[in-house]
This record gives sequence, C-alpha cells and structure tokens, in this order.
Amino acid sequence: MASIISLTTDFGLTGTYVAAMKAVILGINPDVRLVDVCHTIAPQSILQAALAVDSVYDFFPSRTIHLVVVDPGVGTNRRAIVLRTPEADFVAPDNGVLSYVLMRFSGPWSDSQGPVEVEIPGELEAIHLTRPGFWLANVSPTFHGRDIFAPVAAWLSIGRQPSEFGERVSRLTVLPVPRRQRTDAEITGEVVDIDSFGNLVTNIRSEDLWQDRASLTSAVGGRAIRGIVSTYAEGEGLMALIGSTGHLEIAIRNGSAATSLKAQVGDRVTVRRTP
Amino acid sequence: MASIISLTTDFGLTGTYVAAMKAVILGINPDVRLVDVCHTIAPQSILQAALAVDSVYDFFPSRTIHLVVVDPGVGTNRRAIVLRTPEADFVAPDNGVLSYVLMRFSGPWSDSQGPVEVEIPGELEAIHLTRPGFWLANVSPTFHGRDIFAPVAAWLSIGRQPSEFGERVSRLTVLPVPRRQRTDAEITGEVVDIDSFGNLVTNIRSEDLWQDRASLTSAVGGRAIRGIVSTYAEGEGLMALIGSTGHLEIAIRNGSAATSLKAQVGDRVTVRRTP
Amino acid sequence: MASIISLTTDFGLTGTYVAAMKAVILGINPDVRLVDVCHTIAPQSILQAALAVDSVYDFFPSRTIHLVVVDPGVGTNRRAIVLRTPEADFVAPDNGVLSYVLMRFSGPWSDSQGPVEVEIPGELEAIHLTRPGFWLANVSPTFHGRDIFAPVAAWLSIGRQPSEFGERVSRLTVLPVPRRQRTDAEITGEVVDIDSFGNLVTNIRSEDLWQDRASLTSAVGGRAIRGIVSTYAEGEGLMALIGSTGHLEIAIRNGSAATSLKAQVGDRVTVRRTP
Repeated sequence: MASIISLTTDFGLTGTYVAAMKAVILGINPDVRLVDVCHTIAPQSILQAALAVDSVYDFFPSRTIHLVVVDPGVGTNRRAIVLRTPEADFVAPDNGVLSYVLMRFSGPWSDSQGPVEVEIPGELEAIHLTRPGFWLANVSPTFHGRDIFAPVAAWLSIGRQPSEFGERVSRLTVLPVPRRQRTDAEITGEVVDIDSFGNLVTNIRSEDLWQDRASLTSAVGGRAIRGIVSTYAEGEGLMALIGSTGHLEIAIRNGSAATSLKAQVGDRVTVRRTP
Repeated sequence: MASIISLTTDFGLTGTYVAAMKAVILGINPDVRLVDVCHTIAPQSILQAALAVDSVYDFFPSRTIHLVVVDPGVGTNRRAIVLRTPEADFVAPDNGVLSYVLMRFSGPWSDSQGPVEVEIPGELEAIHLTRPGFWLANVSPTFHGRDIFAPVAAWLSIGRQPSEFGERVSRLTVLPVPRRQRTDAEITGEVVDIDSFGNLVTNIRSEDLWQDRASLTSAVGGRAIRGIVSTYAEGEGLMALIGSTGHLEIAIRNGSAATSLKAQVGDRVTVRRTP
Repeated sequence: MASIISLTTDFGLTGTYVAAMKAVILGINPDVRLVDVCHTIAPQSILQAALAVDSVYDFFPSRTIHLVVVDPGVGTNRRAIVLRTPEADFVAPDNGVLSYVLMRFSGPWSDSQGPVEVEIPGELEAIHLTRPGFWLANVSPTFHGRDIFAPVAAWLSIGRQPSEFGERVSRLTVLPVPRRQRTDAEITGEVVDIDSFGNLVTNIRSEDLWQDRASLTSAVGGRAIRGIVSTYAEGEGLMALIGSTGHLEIAIRNGSAATSLKAQVGDRVTVRRTP
C-alpha cells in the first residue's frame, strides 16, 4: 500500500513553491500519494494551520505523513521536527504549528501570551531534524519546506524511521490556543475559523452543550439565536448547528454568516440556557 | 488499471473539506486516481455544477466515477444516489446536479420553475443510497460529501456494484435548464457559463447554426458581432467563435468579454441570418 | 517507476479546462503522476509561464515531462512542439514559453521588441508536432492543450519518442527576457516575479553580487536597503536577501513588500557597492 503525504502551507494558490516540494518528494518516493490539505493559510498564521491539520487528520488512513509548512522563522534557530503519534507522523517547524495535535495528548498548558515549550508524553516521539544526509544537497535558508521538510517526509514515506533523522527531544513548542469556559448558566468560546461558505466555526464542542438543545440561545456579534438545528436547510435565516467536525457553528441559510454578521476569527460566542 | 474518481464541489479553494473527502476515499481505495474537476462552483449553485461535470466527463476514461457534491439540502430527506450510465458512474445528491447528464438520455422535460422528478430510461441504473454499511461509522448531518458520498465512490472504485448500496429508483430530480429556440431567421439562447478568461459560453451549439457562417450576426448586451471566427487570435476586438465544448462563445482578443460587456450568466444571446 | 507530467497553464482556478487535460492524459497513461505547477499565470502571459517553469523544473526527477500551455495563438500557424533537453521534456506551443529553458543552452540572443527565432544547439531535440495520430480524434481550434499537447505528453510518458510526433526543427521562438547589467559600481536588474507572500523576486543572481555583502545597498521604488540578510526573520522592516531560487529578493518582515512598495513586475532594482 502506497504511503500518503498530506501538505498544508501558507504558500497560496499562485507560484510554484508547492510544486517544488512535490517535485522533491517524488524524486525520493515516486509512488507516494500526495494530498493537498490547504495552501491558503494566511501568511505566517501558525495557529490557523494548526487548526486545519487537526480538523482533518483523523480522516486520513493511519500512518499518513502530514507535512505542515507555515514557517516564518525559516533559517533561524527554530527547530525542524518530526512528531510521531500513535496514528500519524507530522513533519513541521517546531513553532506551535502542531499545538492542536499536541493538545490531544497533553493536558492544557499554562496560559501565556506567546509560544512556550511543554513536555510531551512518552507515547509521542519527537525528533529534531539534524542530519543533513536526508536533506537536499543545497539548503536555502529561506525554503526549508522544499529542502528539509519535503525530503524528510519522503524518506519517512519509504520506511525510514524518525530516529534516523536526528536526536530525540522531550519538549516541543506550543502556542496559546483559544479556551472555552463553562459555568452553570453559560458557555463562552470564540470563532476559530470561517469556512468557505462563510459559516463561523467555534471552539465550543457538541459535548460541551446541555442536553435540552431547544432551550439554548447562542449569541454572536450582538445577535441571539434560539435552539440548535440539525441541518443547514432546516434553519431560517441565522442558525446555530453542530458542524461536521463536532463544533458549534453559526450559519445563515444559502448565505455567508461571516459577511452578514461582519464576523471574524476571535469574535466571542456564548451559549446560554434559557429555561 | 487504477480507477479514477473525479471531484466537483462548491467547497472553494480554502479550508479542508475537499481534503477530508480525499482522505476518506484513500482509506478505502489507496490506489484510486483522484482528479479535481472544479471546487469553485458558486455556493449552492446546483446547475453550475451540473454544467461543469457535463462539459468534462466525456474526456475521462470510460467508467470514471464522478463525485459531485453541491448539496444545500444535506441532512434533509433529499436522496443520495448513484447513477450508472453506459460510460460513467455519478455519486451525488438527487437535487438536479445531474440534470445535464440526464438530458443526454431523456427527452426534454416539461417546463417548470423548480426541480421536478422525471422517469429515467432503462439504460440508466439509479440507486438510492440507503445502506449505512458503506458509509463512515459516524455520519454528520452537515457533511454527507465526506461521510456518505466519498466512501460510496471509493467502494464503487474497487468494484462494488451500485445495487449493493441501496434500492433501485426509476425517477430522479432535474432542474429546468436554459433552453434555446430556433426560427427560420434567428436562434435565441443564453450565456450559461463564463470561463476563466472571461469568455461567454452560450447554450447555442455549433450544429444549431446555419452553414454560411460569414452571414451570421451574433448579439449580446446590445453589441452585434458579424461572422464566426475560428480562433481567438483571428478576431479583432469582440468576436464570436465555437469554443472547445462545441458551443457558441463570445470572446474578446487578449481580454475579458465578461468584463467588457458587463455580461452575466443568464444574459440573452441571439444569432441571426443577415443575407 | 511511473512517469511524471507537470502542468503549467493560464487557465486559472475556476472552470474545468485543467481537468479536461488530466482526463485525456489518464486515458492514455493511467499510471502517470500529475503535478500542478501553476495555473494562475496571468492570461496570455507567456513570459510569466516561462519563468515559473524554469524556477521549478530542476527540482523534479530527471525526465519529467513539463506541459506548458499559455497559448494565445492557439489554432493559428504557431507551431506545437516537444523540446527534449538532457534532463527533461517540454510540450508547449512555440511562442517563447520556453525562453528561460532555452537560455540555459543558448547564449543570449540579440535584443528585440518581440519574439524571434533562434538556432538551438545540437544537444537539444525539438520536434514540430505534425502527426494527428497522437492527438484526439477531434481537435478544437481553441483548445490544443486538451486535444494536442495533453495527449502528446501522455504518449511521451509511456515511452514514445519525440521523433515519432513530427519533424525535427532547428530553430525555436524566444521572447526578449529582462537583462541585468553590471558595472564596477552597480548592478541593474528588475523585478521579474512577485511571490504569494508579496516578496519581489529579481533577475539579479547571488553570484552577480560582490562578496562583501554588508557593503551593498539595494534600491527599489525609491527605497534603499543596506546589506543582505540570510532569513526573513532576521530582517527589520524592508530587507534584501537571496531567495530560494538563488535570486536577490526584496521582502518585508511578516508583510508584503509588493503592497508596501506598490511594486510591480518590471520595476527596476539596483545594487551598489557603498564602501
């Protein structure tokens, strides 16, 4: 069975940077399957890439290799890493771009304004990429995606082990991720993503909500929405529903909630019980 | 020979929804070839997707599986279907997104303002997808593309038969498609698509036109164009020609006819004999 | 080992033209690997496509087939060609879209305002595509990408030789490419590309520069930049550095130099020694 490498970058839909990475990969493993996850991550938006990868990697076959290149610190002393989890491998800069993946294994880390290093649990294997023998012969200080990450992902895809690429490390970098808070009366979260339909994806999960969903009122941008519908077609105008990744979503029928509400990532969303 | 699955959606070029479908497919058939047809269908524009698929599927090898997910009714009682034709398989919601494909087999259906069900001829096999054993274990009511259509397409691609997925149905949903009309003096049609160069693609076909093409005058947006040229380079300014799908097209040399004429899908186009 | 075909076009990210070419290719070689290089070349921008292909083809495995379709003269008497170099094959219209590839083999050609034909050296093999047996049965005069170039690339990918497709030619068309000039005190070049981050890529190469890089001052759009940094993170505000293709680049930290400087392709860039 052919290995799969997924690609997530902030390289956009113009230019040839994504193609250069694919070219390098196919030079090492001509049989690998390449799947574009997303290349429209906003430039240098590490946390947006972290969320994109986290939202989709469960659906890939076990042992897929996820190449995640949002790398504003390219060429500096930020480390290049491979992270092996029980399900998948990730090849990325150690800048927080795997924060959501790591949150599944580590408890919540203490609040901070910026990146911090956290201890990772023993079930994860993290390797600092230090062996140039697995890289392109000439490494540009401005494009490790092509010259280091892509070839390492390709070598992984033909069965080389993470430990061959460098030294094991016990701490990785994470970024503060938006928290949700729950009291007896209210859950507070925020918009973490706006999808291509303009639906507002929040960080409030289905299991956070109280059972009696008809009694719930969601609020965002000064608008209140009563109840939770099941499908986009069911709603009239603005609606709240559980989206396909299990998170509360605010949508508008056949339109863009983001445009209608002038909503942005980071906007506060609350859900209240209104008995 | 590996099977091919083509993908047409309104998911746009951002986000991870397309990748999620591909991930699910590769989990079932790691050898399948995936080809993106178009993901920039305007949100919920069923007929635009119907036209896109129809314009391209003849060029795919026989028995390609076309996954078409423009699905505003996802999660409601609209049916999910497989349609098998002598050449290809289509996996899609039964909402009219296969109207142009069906038009090749059924005579024109009676005029209507919205979707209607029509009898399909015996050479076609349509199956209502009702067997959850072929779906993902957890089906989100908001993303059947990932949870039902993608896995069914993947199972098809490894040789499972349509009849295994559910019950045969004899009627499918179609939408009213733009008609063209011809008198002795004039053909009337409309702009049905605007391509990436800004060329206006009409629903008037090459074979609709009278033989003496120098005598024809096309009119759109108050502008008249004499004759039919063969190539984009041949025209001076605004020109009419037969495009690569056999339809009359209005173009402008090294520019966008759509911008120049402020033209839109639905604009009326006429061709007259001017002896 | 499966062959690879890369695709570069001005077909944009909407519509089904790219899919049509892929469909045709897979009908001839179901095992070929397809890699999108870039489809957002500005319509009819032959030289932009020439640069895109040149910037990336070194990273593909040897003998990759590069399909380059920016073809404003489609259907006219401009020739369709295959160019075989020691490393790769190119399938394209003979309109200058391989100018940068040819520049690697031919000395600089005399100045001109438009396209000129030049003699190609003996190590290159160029074939004028004249044998319709390798094309689709019906060739649209408006889409040779689908009907001629794609099938020829596919036949090449399964081992057919260039000489089977038509007659050998000794001259090919090139376009004037931006020159750089160097005196004892100054190098003058220009912006040849703006990447997806808004970085200005110039035609001044790393090896053009004097050794003592701290002493250099780059100038573009009335702004002067002292020194050459190694990484994007190192710079403060506007910076000059050597980008991943070995060319001088003007960038701005976590922002778009193109937007900030209102810069465009063609803008003049100079580098001076300031001892």
